[in-house]
Amino acid sequence: MRKLFMLLLLLPLTAFAAGIKSPDGNVELQFYILNGRPTYQMNYKGRAVIRPSHLGLELQNWPSLMDGFEMGAVRTSAFDETWQPVWGEESRIRNHYNELEAEIRQPATSRSIVIRFRVYDEGIGLRYELPRQQGLDNVIVKEEHTQFALTGDHIAYWIPGDYDTDEYEYTVSRLSDVRRLSAKARTPNACQEGFSPTGLQTALLLKTDDGLYLNIHEAACIDYSSMHLNLDDTNMVLESWLTPDAKGRKAYLRCPATTPWRTVMVVDDARKMLASRLILNLNEPCKIEDTSWIHPIKYMGVWWEMITGKSTWSYGEYQPVTVGETDFTKIKPSGRHGANNENVKRYIDFASRHGFQELLVEGWNQGWEDNWQKDNNYSFTLSYPDFDVQALQQYANERGMKLMMHHETSASVPNYERRMEAAYTFAEQNGYDAVKSGYVGYIFPNGGRHTDQWMINHYHYAVTEAARHHLMVNGHEAVRPTGLCRTWPNMIGNESARGTEFQASEGCQPKHVTILPFTRLQGGPMDYTPGLFEMNLENINPDNHAHVIATICNQLALYVTLYSPLQMAADLPENYEKHLDAFQFIKDVAVDWDESRYLEAEPGQYITIARRAKGTQNWFVGSVAGEKAHKSALKLDFLTPGKQYMATIYADGKDASWQQNPTSYTIRRQKVNSKTRLNLRAVQAGGWAVSIFPL
Amino acid sequence: MRKLFMLLLLLPLTAFAAGIKSPDGNVELQFYILNGRPTYQMNYKGRAVIRPSHLGLELQNWPSLMDGFEMGAVRTSAFDETWQPVWGEESRIRNHYNELEAEIRQPATSRSIVIRFRVYDEGIGLRYELPRQQGLDNVIVKEEHTQFALTGDHIAYWIPGDYDTDEYEYTVSRLSDVRRLSAKARTPNACQEGFSPTGLQTALLLKTDDGLYLNIHEAACIDYSSMHLNLDDTNMVLESWLTPDAKGRKAYLRCPATTPWRTVMVVDDARKMLASRLILNLNEPCKIEDTSWIHPIKYMGVWWEMITGKSTWSYGEYQPVTVGETDFTKIKPSGRHGANNENVKRYIDFASRHGFQELLVEGWNQGWEDNWQKDNNYSFTLSYPDFDVQALQQYANERGMKLMMHHETSASVPNYERRMEAAYTFAEQNGYDAVKSGYVGYIFPNGGRHTDQWMINHYHYAVTEAARHHLMVNGHEAVRPTGLCRTWPNMIGNESARGTEFQASEGCQPKHVTILPFTRLQGGPMDYTPGLFEMNLENINPDNHAHVIATICNQLALYVTLYSPLQMAADLPENYEKHLDAFQFIKDVAVDWDESRYLEAEPGQYITIARRAKGTQNWFVGSVAGEKAHKSALKLDFLTPGKQYMATIYADGKDASWQQNPTSYTIRRQKVNSKTRLNLRAVQAGGWAVSIFPL
Repeated sequence: MRKLFMLLLLLPLTAFAAGIKSPDGNVELQFYILNGRPTYQMNYKGRAVIRPSHLGLELQNWPSLMDGFEMGAVRTSAFDETWQPVWGEESRIRNHYNELEAEIRQPATSRSIVIRFRVYDEGIGLRYELPRQQGLDNVIVKEEHTQFALTGDHIAYWIPGDYDTDEYEYTVSRLSDVRRLSAKARTPNACQEGFSPTGLQTALLLKTDDGLYLNIHEAACIDYSSMHLNLDDTNMVLESWLTPDAKGRKAYLRCPATTPWRTVMVVDDARKMLASRLILNLNEPCKIEDTSWIHPIKYMGVWWEMITGKSTWSYGEYQPVTVGETDFTKIKPSGRHGANNENVKRYIDFASRHGFQELLVEGWNQGWEDNWQKDNNYSFTLSYPDFDVQALQQYANERGMKLMMHHETSASVPNYERRMEAAYTFAEQNGYDAVKSGYVGYIFPNGGRHTDQWMINHYHYAVTEAARHHLMVNGHEAVRPTGLCRTWPNMIGNESARGTEFQASEGCQPKHVTILPFTRLQGGPMDYTPGLFEMNLENINPDNHAHVIATICNQLALYVTLYSPLQMAADLPENYEKHLDAFQFIKDVAVDWDESRYLEAEPGQYITIARRAKGTQNWFVGSVAGEKAHKSALKLDFLTPGKQYMATIYADGKDASWQQNPTSYTIRRQKVNSKTRLNLRAVQAGGWAVSIFPL
Repeated sequence: MRKLFMLLLLLPLTAFAAGIKSPDGNVELQFYILNGRPTYQMNYKGRAVIRPSHLGLELQNWPSLMDGFEMGAVRTSAFDETWQPVWGEESRIRNHYNELEAEIRQPATSRSIVIRFRVYDEGIGLRYELPRQQGLDNVIVKEEHTQFALTGDHIAYWIPGDYDTDEYEYTVSRLSDVRRLSAKARTPNACQEGFSPTGLQTALLLKTDDGLYLNIHEAACIDYSSMHLNLDDTNMVLESWLTPDAKGRKAYLRCPATTPWRTVMVVDDARKMLASRLILNLNEPCKIEDTSWIHPIKYMGVWWEMITGKSTWSYGEYQPVTVGETDFTKIKPSGRHGANNENVKRYIDFASRHGFQELLVEGWNQGWEDNWQKDNNYSFTLSYPDFDVQALQQYANERGMKLMMHHETSASVPNYERRMEAAYTFAEQNGYDAVKSGYVGYIFPNGGRHTDQWMINHYHYAVTEAARHHLMVNGHEAVRPTGLCRTWPNMIGNESARGTEFQASEGCQPKHVTILPFTRLQGGPMDYTPGLFEMNLENINPDNHAHVIATICNQLALYVTLYSPLQMAADLPENYEKHLDAFQFIKDVAVDWDESRYLEAEPGQYITIARRAKGTQNWFVGSVAGEKAHKSALKLDFLTPGKQYMATIYADGKDASWQQNPTSYTIRRQKVNSKTRLNLRAVQAGGWAVSIFPL
């Protein structure tokens, strides 16, 4: 405590520090006014994690809330509750924290605001609360200045700050190298806009030289813009940087208002970060009364064939069309349309035979011929002439399945909002219960951004309107989530990171899936769409020369290591037909869980997780390796002692190699119990998966 | 023709000029390629009106269509048709023009486009047509460069160029004085954005030193941004300047595409400009099959009392509310809410007693407490607790009236689009047949502009969706019209200029109403809301110290001189009660016409018009004076010879003066026939009105 003590000596005499600890005492938070500026600092097990860092809001239409403050009333309280998620990595989640609520007063303006801290065993959340008062009613935020002053030049697992996309590879580097590597890290995307050479995205994972893992993110981002981080790489201070709208305004608040929570997680074992539910806990409880219609989904899709270029979303060639006016029965079909009745039935036949619940079909609706930067681009109720909505839904129903709705917007968002009520009503009336939405491209019209306040509100609007129609939502190219699925569990998935689709072009580096659970997945599940079996894409489309960076067993393990209640088997039926033995794991694996054990974890290197399927004694274990091969000595001590189980072990073959031999795998079955140890090995970009059923 | 001859000598040898004349031969148009640039010029009765002026489109995503052109095929044709508007200044409109269609080729890019000219007796229209071809499919227009090279430093009747508002006073000056006067002309508005000190708005009225009147405007602005003009005040060349979106892009076109028509009117008698239907004729015929539900409307409104500050739109005081969540029965009423049941009934009683068809009620719906720069600001289906939609509509119906719907958006346009279907359905189901919409403030969110392409498309969408619901639309703060009411006659009005509302604050200068018919009204009717009788606003609201700039007879005359199928009697019932004799003219005057005679006209000075009411032999004559008093020797030779009529003459009193004695008027009745002459006098900002009924 020497450092803190010295600091307090430097404080003006009028200041006093309010302190609070986590329930286990490991996380320590101090809040005080330093030269008129609200300031906090944070320790973990006695070590500084966040040095004195200022808080403040710069306003456009009122005097700012940056300085000139003095301390007001301080209240502390404790909270402990266990709640049950509608779906999740476990069936019960404990929300246990100590809270500090500090009123601070700005005498020059006679205004006061509140800074609220919640301190958990694995980190903190803090937010600004603006009561309505003279001089604070409708507020335009010019910038939020929340600082995170780090204690050193940590290792960062980062993607570049961007207002429009998060579909980047992670770069692992010292913070001091961010500036140098920034341009290289900014790989091309259909829509991107950086803001600073030291701009970073949250959730930002950091590792200190003394073995602490930090994570800076946000929770419950509602009616506010996304928070990015900008690094002062001289002083190693991160500061919030909000997404502006087209006029440069960063947020509009109507007081009384609260900002989203800003979170700092800190653990000394990477596995504890995977086990943390801090982000979910900082969100409001479920707002949907009857959740009986919400369910996890394992699904296939008429999708990968378009991504790989084998077939097309559009019915005709690129040409001018106007939805609602163009008679699509009169335009010449390209002959390559994927979403045609015959092909869809082929997928339904395969998927239903193997027990899938739903089939996503993209390119079913009118408008794909001419969908770019256009207001009136898609219909969400008119199908192409070769796609019979009712007949196909019935065909699926008769086989125990549903079709999944697809709403690509091409980021023409006002067009989608105009048509949303009709679109959701159409979906509901035609037996759909889930919608995959998409926002590819620049927000059209008028220059919004994917992460600005209006788009944040749009995604929220879509989810809440969908709930009214009993529709689950899986938004792609939407903002990276901040735990809102606790409040709106019909938000069963998001993309919001570089997903499997990139395997059809530039690829995803081996380390990618070993970092995502620490970063992107902290905010909510990702529709990563694993399950590729055919790694040489020329075998799907001769013009596609990409090679998937993964082994088959890596793909299997992802169903366990990348938690989602929504899991796709992304590859084509014909590719699964060639490896039905390995496909068995995808058929068996659960998508909802009673408990999860984080057995091994080191970001960039490996993750090994065991999970027990909801309401059963079936366990599934997955392990993925990143840039290096990884050996595991898997102890099955999570099994019920004395009980016998049959395990099926899917592992990379001895000669497996994502470049040379990605389809090399072994499958073996053996009886196991809680004392069994299994020695398993994953190659680079490889993995293994184990299913364990009680005998 | 000496000038033209000299010019042709300067042309490169490969060029040739295509020429065409108006049906009466007075307007002459030449089109040719000058140094690779498409160029036109225009004469009137042998005098140059537009000197050689270039045409061109600067593109963002393809090589521009500016130069490197050569002449292709040229076709000429003639057209003559008479059509019947659903409502209008006359029951039959002749559309008579000669057309020149010039294909021009750009050899370097192997592309060709078409410039189409239509030449009328009183001017021309020209537009760009872009056939779809290699190198022209989805086009982003960086700027349109349509020039109008004038022949001198004309007198201009202008308002400053602005992306967001046209609610300015007209300045009358030489073009060379625009730059100097520009800042002064840009009076404050709730939402404004200029672009150049020599930026001007269309319709721009010009008067040459040799007595020609020119008008530059556009027709049929659909799926494109508005055209403004920027003046090169050294060379007296006006050039088109389109409204950009927030990303600076000016228009997105999907080829095949056509731009709106650019129009140049030229007449040697100002009355001919008022009689011209050039803008309407350049629009497409009516697209509504059954127009039986569309009808002119004379109406009153619970409106002026809010504009003058006597009462408020909002039910409660300024406070945070969320429509759909806030329980408005629980918030404290301000006690000043205008749209309350009792007050509305009072208006219905008065308006029905005097034969009005509808009553507009503003501030009926939830959200006004907190409506600014907010996405979810208004409900269009939830009324305030003291406004009973069904009971009041029934109360009106029982008295032969309807309520008129009001949809203020505060420019939160996506919110309106989201709710539009529900809003229009609600209106239709509750017996409304007309909607006044409003777009006060900056487009929210994300920085669009009132005149950008997306907003143009929004207004169009609103009108076409309204037509589906059999609703007429009167859009305020929308783009100034370009004749689209021919195609969509349910667009019965627009504001889109400085209207009567300004009389409650800064006022409207006397000349204003003598200019509007030459400018703003060329594109379609204006909901100017005339009819003020109480000129001292302290008598309405003691805190309002404004004085209306008009006499009562000026206000009466406006019902004839400012054509609109939608005419309000703007003042309060109690103010009409004081002058029921003068009010009789407002009760009598028609709002739809079989024929109109433009008897006297000089912009800025005076306008006198006689109109025959549709399907009758009733005539109404109105005359307004601008900055100076005006004497008229009114010949009634438009009456049927030999027939006797009773005329009622409402004229400024001898001592009438808008400042000192605005309510001084005389009313006299006399028998008249086609040989009668009446000597009448209007004071400054005064006027007179005559109703003439057959005996």
